[in-house]
Amino acid sequence: MTRRRVLLDVDTGVDDALALMLALGSPELEVVGITTVSGNVPLARTTANTLIVLDILGTPAIPVVAGAAAPLARDLITAAEVFGTDGLGDVTAGYPAASRQAAEGAVDFMLDMVRRFPGELTLVATGPLTNVATAIRRDGETMRRLQALTVMGGAIRVPGNVGSATEFNFGVDPEAAAIVLGAGLPLTLVPLDVTRQVVLCREEVEGAQGAGRLQAFIREITAVTMEFHRRHEGIDGMTLDDPLAVGVVLDPSLVEVEAMAVAVERRGELTAGMAVADLRRRSRTKPPTAMVCMRVEAGRFLDLFRRRVLA
Amino acid sequence: MTRRRVLLDVDTGVDDALALMLALGSPELEVVGITTVSGNVPLARTTANTLIVLDILGTPAIPVVAGAAAPLARDLITAAEVFGTDGLGDVTAGYPAASRQAAEGAVDFMLDMVRRFPGELTLVATGPLTNVATAIRRDGETMRRLQALTVMGGAIRVPGNVGSATEFNFGVDPEAAAIVLGAGLPLTLVPLDVTRQVVLCREEVEGAQGAGRLQAFIREITAVTMEFHRRHEGIDGMTLDDPLAVGVVLDPSLVEVEAMAVAVERRGELTAGMAVADLRRRSRTKPPTAMVCMRVEAGRFLDLFRRRVLA
Repeated sequence: MTRRRVLLDVDTGVDDALALMLALGSPELEVVGITTVSGNVPLARTTANTLIVLDILGTPAIPVVAGAAAPLARDLITAAEVFGTDGLGDVTAGYPAASRQAAEGAVDFMLDMVRRFPGELTLVATGPLTNVATAIRRDGETMRRLQALTVMGGAIRVPGNVGSATEFNFGVDPEAAAIVLGAGLPLTLVPLDVTRQVVLCREEVEGAQGAGRLQAFIREITAVTMEFHRRHEGIDGMTLDDPLAVGVVLDPSLVEVEAMAVAVERRGELTAGMAVADLRRRSRTKPPTAMVCMRVEAGRFLDLFRRRVLA
Repeated sequence: MTRRRVLLDVDTGVDDALALMLALGSPELEVVGITTVSGNVPLARTTANTLIVLDILGTPAIPVVAGAAAPLARDLITAAEVFGTDGLGDVTAGYPAASRQAAEGAVDFMLDMVRRFPGELTLVATGPLTNVATAIRRDGETMRRLQALTVMGGAIRVPGNVGSATEFNFGVDPEAAAIVLGAGLPLTLVPLDVTRQVVLCREEVEGAQGAGRLQAFIREITAVTMEFHRRHEGIDGMTLDDPLAVGVVLDPSLVEVEAMAVAVERRGELTAGMAVADLRRRSRTKPPTAMVCMRVEAGRFLDLFRRRVLA
């Protein structure tokens, strides 16, 4: 089996942690590196969390490279209420320090990886797009040699989660999202339209009790997020937003995509970071900017996630 | 029968013309006046068109008062491609000049009418909300004594018609729409979600051939609009956007409404004028700003329109 080379750009975060577990638990993928970005929590924390996850998984050798500490043009908004103050359910204080440190220079690392594997590297971005946009600005020619770019972000026909119409990753760094959506890269967008359909049930995670060290870790880090979902979304579990982006890379047949002309609003008072898809009939001739996942076989993805991560 | 007192605020336009015909052809309504605003075409034209329609209908005695010649903070965008350069299908040059002139001072007239009929006046706005917003700014206390305000505008769950996510009336004057949506008035919104479902078929209008002066006029003024719809929307006819706003006043049972917290984006590059409804589950406790028509019995409305206007 030829393994598909992927670079993960993450703001770890509970659901990024689960996405890392899925990627690293999948033999089809060769994770050539992980870059970190500020988002769910500040950069130092997303980086530390990433290292902790790698230690737990026993895969510490993968390069981890820290990137942007702040959005391109704004102050950072975090998601501490969803994922805990430390981004991992407020449990990391009880874990040993990671076995090593991250490098710095995510954007250069990202560009180096694309140059090393031209036309063969898939970039999966599950955080704000600050690193990716900066790489495009620095060397767009190189970034066009990505085999694929899969981005968890946006809300097309469903409400947002950080604003009425704005999804978190795009809302944290609208300027970066606008650059990435406008760059003409081979982009697959994994928006809330599909991610909100993949729900990991609380019962299932609690049922894995006693199974192993990884399962215990998952149980611990997801508790705060599940409580948030129960209180605010009426869901007894949590949505697997970032893991689905990895799932789409593993098995594109899990989703149905629509080619859309999507742009990102930068200036709105109410809509900054909104993914604006032009779905007007008269705009059908506009060139699409992304393949957008609009339907998902949720049960089949959850089966995959269970086998690869929970089992 | 007690007739319901209505004031119509229009930017006449083909579909405003049809809305005037429906209102003035409905014995349940007493049209106490008509104010005009720039929108589909410039103010001089929307005013002249309104007078022409009243002459055709044989109801010239109704006060017509001209209002804002430009949006609050922007240059006017018109809809000449939809309704013709004159706003009435490029046929008005062939009609005699109206039998009289309009007055000026729409905002004062609007406020006077509310004061004269406190708690009893329904304002139906089918153009950009410049006049209505100015009246609210000038004397919000008085405007709160409207019995009802019914506004054709916005696109909630469907694409826009002037931008990807922006409906024309709100897109022409986002600042005005934002003021009106934020004013706490007894507002019913009639967005594209429902108006695009009510289609007057070309065949039906052409079938009325030879019927009478009014039907001939309708046939003439709608041809350009129907051609636009055919070319760009794939519809063999035209949507009755503004007439539906009058229909909702005549028979609220034609529509199902949802109470929503809707605000209007003012600053967006892509989304200025977008009606932003906060439909997030966690926002359910937000106070609603409008009752929004989200479903319509299109056939029943079209029957009403046929009886009152085409017959």
